[in-house]
Amino acid sequence: MARLYHVPLSPFCRKVRLTLAEKKIECELVEERYWEQSPDFLRRNPAGKVPVLKIDGKTLAESTPICEWLDETHPEPALIPQEPDARYEVRRLVAWFDDKFHNEVTSKLLYERVNKKMMKQGFPDSGNVKSGARAIKYHLDYMAWLLDRRRWLAGDVMTLADFTAAAHLSALDYISDVDWNRSDVLKDWYAKIKSRPAFRSILADQVPGFPPPAHYADLDF
Amino acid sequence: MARLYHVPLSPFCRKVRLTLAEKKIECELVEERYWEQSPDFLRRNPAGKVPVLKIDGKTLAESTPICEWLDETHPEPALIPQEPDARYEVRRLVAWFDDKFHNEVTSKLLYERVNKKMMKQGFPDSGNVKSGARAIKYHLDYMAWLLDRRRWLAGDVMTLADFTAAAHLSALDYISDVDWNRSDVLKDWYAKIKSRPAFRSILADQVPGFPPPAHYADLDF
Repeated sequence: MARLYHVPLSPFCRKVRLTLAEKKIECELVEERYWEQSPDFLRRNPAGKVPVLKIDGKTLAESTPICEWLDETHPEPALIPQEPDARYEVRRLVAWFDDKFHNEVTSKLLYERVNKKMMKQGFPDSGNVKSGARAIKYHLDYMAWLLDRRRWLAGDVMTLADFTAAAHLSALDYISDVDWNRSDVLKDWYAKIKSRPAFRSILADQVPGFPPPAHYADLDF
Repeated sequence: MARLYHVPLSPFCRKVRLTLAEKKIECELVEERYWEQSPDFLRRNPAGKVPVLKIDGKTLAESTPICEWLDETHPEPALIPQEPDARYEVRRLVAWFDDKFHNEVTSKLLYERVNKKMMKQGFPDSGNVKSGARAIKYHLDYMAWLLDRRRWLAGDVMTLADFTAAAHLSALDYISDVDWNRSDVLKDWYAKIKSRPAFRSILADQVPGFPPPAHYADLDF
C-alpha cells in the first residue's frame, strides 16, 4: 500500500491526499514532525518538507510534481485536462494558490496561529495575522469572480486547481479564518467539494490543542 | 511576435527566455519594473509578478506553467520527457530550484545585493547574505552529486530542470556568487549549457549600476 508522510493541516499534503482519494488509491497516512528534521526523514526527502509519498517502490516529494505524476499514472478520473490551454489554466491556478495565496494568506494565518505553537516558536505576530486577514478577502473575491464565469475554478470541469484551493481554504476553515458569507457562489463551490467522498478524511482531521469549530466538518455549513 | 515582460536577472524570467530561445520562438523582451505595480501591468497579470508572456493572443503568467505550455504547444526540442517517472524527476528538480534554492540562496544573495538597491529598499542584510553564501555550497554539492550519476540534472537528456538551475546560477554568476572551482563536473555542466545558442541573450544582459564580471559571458570561464 502507498504511504504518505504528512501533517494534517498542511495544504500541500491535503492537495495530495485529495488527489489520492479521488483516484481511489489506498494510502496509509503517517504524521511527520518534519520541523524536527530527523535523519530518517531527511533520507526520505533531502528537501526536509512534507508531503513525501512512498508508492510502487518510489519515494516522491514536492506536492505538484506528485499530483502530476499521479494524474499521469492513474488517469481516472482526470484532474488535469488534455488540451494545452486548459492545462495551463489549471497549472496557473495551482501556482496562484501554492505561491501567492500561500505567501499572503496561509503562511500569515495558519502558520502564525497553529504551526508556531506546534513547533514551539513563540506567539503569533499580530501584524502578520492582520495582513493575512486583509489579504484573504481579495483572494475570496477573485475566486468568486472566476466562479461567476465558470462552473469550477479553471473551467467547466473539476481539476487540481479546485483541490489546491480547497486544500488551503479547508486548512484555514479549521481555524475559522474563512468568511463563507462573503460570496454565495464561493460557498456553493466549497459545499460541492466538501461533499465529495475524497474529502472525508480531511474533515475527520483532529489536531491536538486545536479543536475544530462545529461548522468545519458540517456539509451544511 | 511574442512579447515577454521580464527583469533581466530574474531566474524565473531567464527560465522562460531559455525555453523560448531553445524552441526558436522569436520574442520581444520588454523590461518591467514590476515592483512599481503599474495599473497596466496589474491588468496583464493580477499576481503582479514577472514573467508575463504575450503569445498567440494569450497573456500567460507563472514561469513553470508557461514552460509546460510552451513544451506542449511547441514540442521540438522537448524539454520535458514523455515517461511519467522521468517527467516527475524534471518537475521535482524545477520545484527544488524555484522553491528551496530560491528561498535559501537566490533570495538571500541576488535579492539582497541587487533587487533591494533597484527597488530602493535599503542595504543588504548581512545575515541573509551570509546564510545564502553558506547554503549555496550545499546546493552546488547536491548538483555535483547528481551530475556524477547522470549526464544532465534530471537524467541523460537536457531538460527544463537544467534550464531552471542554470537560470538561478547564471543570475548569481552575474554578481560573482558562484564558486565554479568547487566541482569539475558542475563546471563542465555549466560550460555545456552556457555555450548553447539559447544562452546568448542571457550572457548579453547588462544591468545599470551592476556591471557583470569578465568571466560572466566568457565561455571559457
